[in-house]
Amino acid sequence: MPRLLIRNVSVLVVPEQGECRIDDAQDVHVQDDLIVAITPTDAAGPEDAVIDGPGLLAVPGLVNSHTHSPMVMMRGAAEDLAIEDWFNQRIWPMEMNLTPERVRVGARLACAEMLLGGVTTFVDHYFHADQIAAAAIESGIRANLAPTFFSATDATGSTNKEMQAAFDVTRELGELHPRITASLGPHATYTVNDDDLRRTAEVARDEGFRIHLHAAETDDQTQASLDKYGVTPIQVLERTGVLDAGALIAHGCGIRPEDLPILGRYAGRTAVASCPKVYLKLAMGEVTPIKGLMTAGVSVGVGTDGAAVHNTLDVWEAIRMVALTQKQREQDAEWMTVDDTLRLAMRGSAAAAGLTGKVGVLEPGHQADVVLVDLNAPHNQPLHDPRAALVYSVRATDVVTVLVAGQVVVRDHRLTSMDLDEVVADARSLAHTLVDLSKGGSIQHYDP
Amino acid sequence: MPRLLIRNVSVLVVPEQGECRIDDAQDVHVQDDLIVAITPTDAAGPEDAVIDGPGLLAVPGLVNSHTHSPMVMMRGAAEDLAIEDWFNQRIWPMEMNLTPERVRVGARLACAEMLLGGVTTFVDHYFHADQIAAAAIESGIRANLAPTFFSATDATGSTNKEMQAAFDVTRELGELHPRITASLGPHATYTVNDDDLRRTAEVARDEGFRIHLHAAETDDQTQASLDKYGVTPIQVLERTGVLDAGALIAHGCGIRPEDLPILGRYAGRTAVASCPKVYLKLAMGEVTPIKGLMTAGVSVGVGTDGAAVHNTLDVWEAIRMVALTQKQREQDAEWMTVDDTLRLAMRGSAAAAGLTGKVGVLEPGHQADVVLVDLNAPHNQPLHDPRAALVYSVRATDVVTVLVAGQVVVRDHRLTSMDLDEVVADARSLAHTLVDLSKGGSIQHYDP
Repeated sequence: MPRLLIRNVSVLVVPEQGECRIDDAQDVHVQDDLIVAITPTDAAGPEDAVIDGPGLLAVPGLVNSHTHSPMVMMRGAAEDLAIEDWFNQRIWPMEMNLTPERVRVGARLACAEMLLGGVTTFVDHYFHADQIAAAAIESGIRANLAPTFFSATDATGSTNKEMQAAFDVTRELGELHPRITASLGPHATYTVNDDDLRRTAEVARDEGFRIHLHAAETDDQTQASLDKYGVTPIQVLERTGVLDAGALIAHGCGIRPEDLPILGRYAGRTAVASCPKVYLKLAMGEVTPIKGLMTAGVSVGVGTDGAAVHNTLDVWEAIRMVALTQKQREQDAEWMTVDDTLRLAMRGSAAAAGLTGKVGVLEPGHQADVVLVDLNAPHNQPLHDPRAALVYSVRATDVVTVLVAGQVVVRDHRLTSMDLDEVVADARSLAHTLVDLSKGGSIQHYDP
Repeated sequence: MPRLLIRNVSVLVVPEQGECRIDDAQDVHVQDDLIVAITPTDAAGPEDAVIDGPGLLAVPGLVNSHTHSPMVMMRGAAEDLAIEDWFNQRIWPMEMNLTPERVRVGARLACAEMLLGGVTTFVDHYFHADQIAAAAIESGIRANLAPTFFSATDATGSTNKEMQAAFDVTRELGELHPRITASLGPHATYTVNDDDLRRTAEVARDEGFRIHLHAAETDDQTQASLDKYGVTPIQVLERTGVLDAGALIAHGCGIRPEDLPILGRYAGRTAVASCPKVYLKLAMGEVTPIKGLMTAGVSVGVGTDGAAVHNTLDVWEAIRMVALTQKQREQDAEWMTVDDTLRLAMRGSAAAAGLTGKVGVLEPGHQADVVLVDLNAPHNQPLHDPRAALVYSVRATDVVTVLVAGQVVVRDHRLTSMDLDEVVADARSLAHTLVDLSKGGSIQHYDP
């Protein structure tokens, strides 16, 4: 690929510590999939291809650090329900209807929504992950995919075929494409037994995968685990070797203070993804204890969870909810500052995706995952502080242009990789099949 | 004006109780400023002017039931501060810089932002309200304006000239234009003394104005009032006659259970505006006790507060935050349902604006304040439930066309009434003057 120049943009710089800053009038030099240099702008640059950026702010491509992308197919179909009914009356019965085609159609729509909103990487946990990979590859987005599995419920104690099959999918996805990475995907500590978690941890360590799973989603789950087994879900993860192997823990709202030193021991290879819109909507009682986690050295990223509960895959919205709900949780308006929020969203989410050093910042040697944002619309003006705008007033529709791995995937608000009308029409035509409960049954039962 | 037809739209119907619904394939007939009929669509309709709506959803124009519109000029200039520092270190010192011109420039930008996002009425509380009225009239938006005043701090006990001047502005605004209504605007129970509140209540009763003020914004304020005076701020409003005269109370997060029966006694002429993004951002400790207020029969609306803290005037965002934070507050995912949220946003906010029977629903005899929303973008698809989309996935940019009082003020996402580029440029050119603290001083001190 020839060199590409993003000319005369402002650039968001997110350091590991301290204040973020905006460097104005910069050129971002891209070669192949990499940022090779960022220099003061020079109108006489030699590059073959140029994206002109005056008036635009370049920010690192957003990372959605926990989602179930094909669940866009159930958007708005399970409202005003507590978590038990949400799972048992709607989602798990609906998921009896999953087919490879429906998953792929949903994943294509999800990739379109995310790319148009500046999301360049998503960390997914779902069934038929090969279909999600195909959609991601087609759309141009980057993805870390964990094929979901439960423990067998027949209690034979024999090898869990579903788990072995999921392991095989992870192995295949790991070799598939430069933009696709794979993780092992046990569903949760309450749906996968300790033996299977141990086996998962062994495979993770032996083959170099991370483990992405749900744990301590609510304090009720933590209490139930204590009541049944005498240990917290985080202690389950430790004793089964999951933390030692390296884990991305979704939600963690039920992480107790006594869990923090445990997580701290594995901080270098442990991350937590926080999706706070969901915790309010399901009235889960707590949000992720981010302050404690960060004090323990654990990386925290931001995600949307699936659109069957979050209703969007809008990571800007999720970022804003992290800032707002963390200030509320700690009763401290000076905590989770704009700078801290951007650092969590960029560096924290990259770590959650297992992609530190590759994505999350705009620096030479990193992947050219670049989002150009237009902050000139009235809702961001006057612009006293672009960093505050990114957290508190920006809209996903302010995203103008998106590059992933040096490829332009959104240009002037339009997807270049797929026919958006077709993507939406396909999802519409199949939507009714996903929410049809007439056949009965359920893929799982929520009783943590 | 000739008759106008909005042809072949879906229409959101928000009844006083029970489920909201969507009536598909309707024609909305407008004459002058009124909706005169809503009928099944008929391609052979006789009207002179037609807006074609297939694929669009008509919803009542949104009401921003509490804001300080010119504060868009300070957007992003006071981040990560607790309420005391926010007032005393930033906002009140900045407001030393207010001039009629700067207020007007800010209000024009605010009106542009609101109209483009489907807000057709705003309920404002600010200084130089005549300038805000001018901006509202120019832009085509509807407004209820309360000129802000404090009690004199010189403790002479004489007639408060500032208050008298504010009363005169209210009187003038009340006669100015069919789209402008006026209220009396004492700032708050902690900045206006009981004598002045009594005088305000007398004027309100004698001349038929409502009173719009801040009260019980936080529980700390309520406790401070109890410590100093032995009564809650709501009790102050009762004993000064403010509740009897009819009040719109902003925020009310510090309303105590014992205040609810008091408010209930004046429920027919009392409303509370809730702006929850602000309560989280300032870590105020509580959100408005909406369940208790509604049980007491008090109307509750939704607002953004000023953009110096809310960062946007996006009422869709505010509506979503009401639903999320109320579920969280009550620890009940089945409370503040999609239907309840839409009812609060539409009927509740209209009541808060003092405009019940005029705006808030799409029904014959009501003002033709109509917003056409396009739910076909990927972030709303597939569309299992348009009502859920309006609460949980819609973006302000999904607003296509806006009518206020039968006039098209936004067409195909473009403001028809003002030159948006000029509006934004004017705000930009003056923005630095508002945040300049070099001259010192402050208009007020926060010490409730």
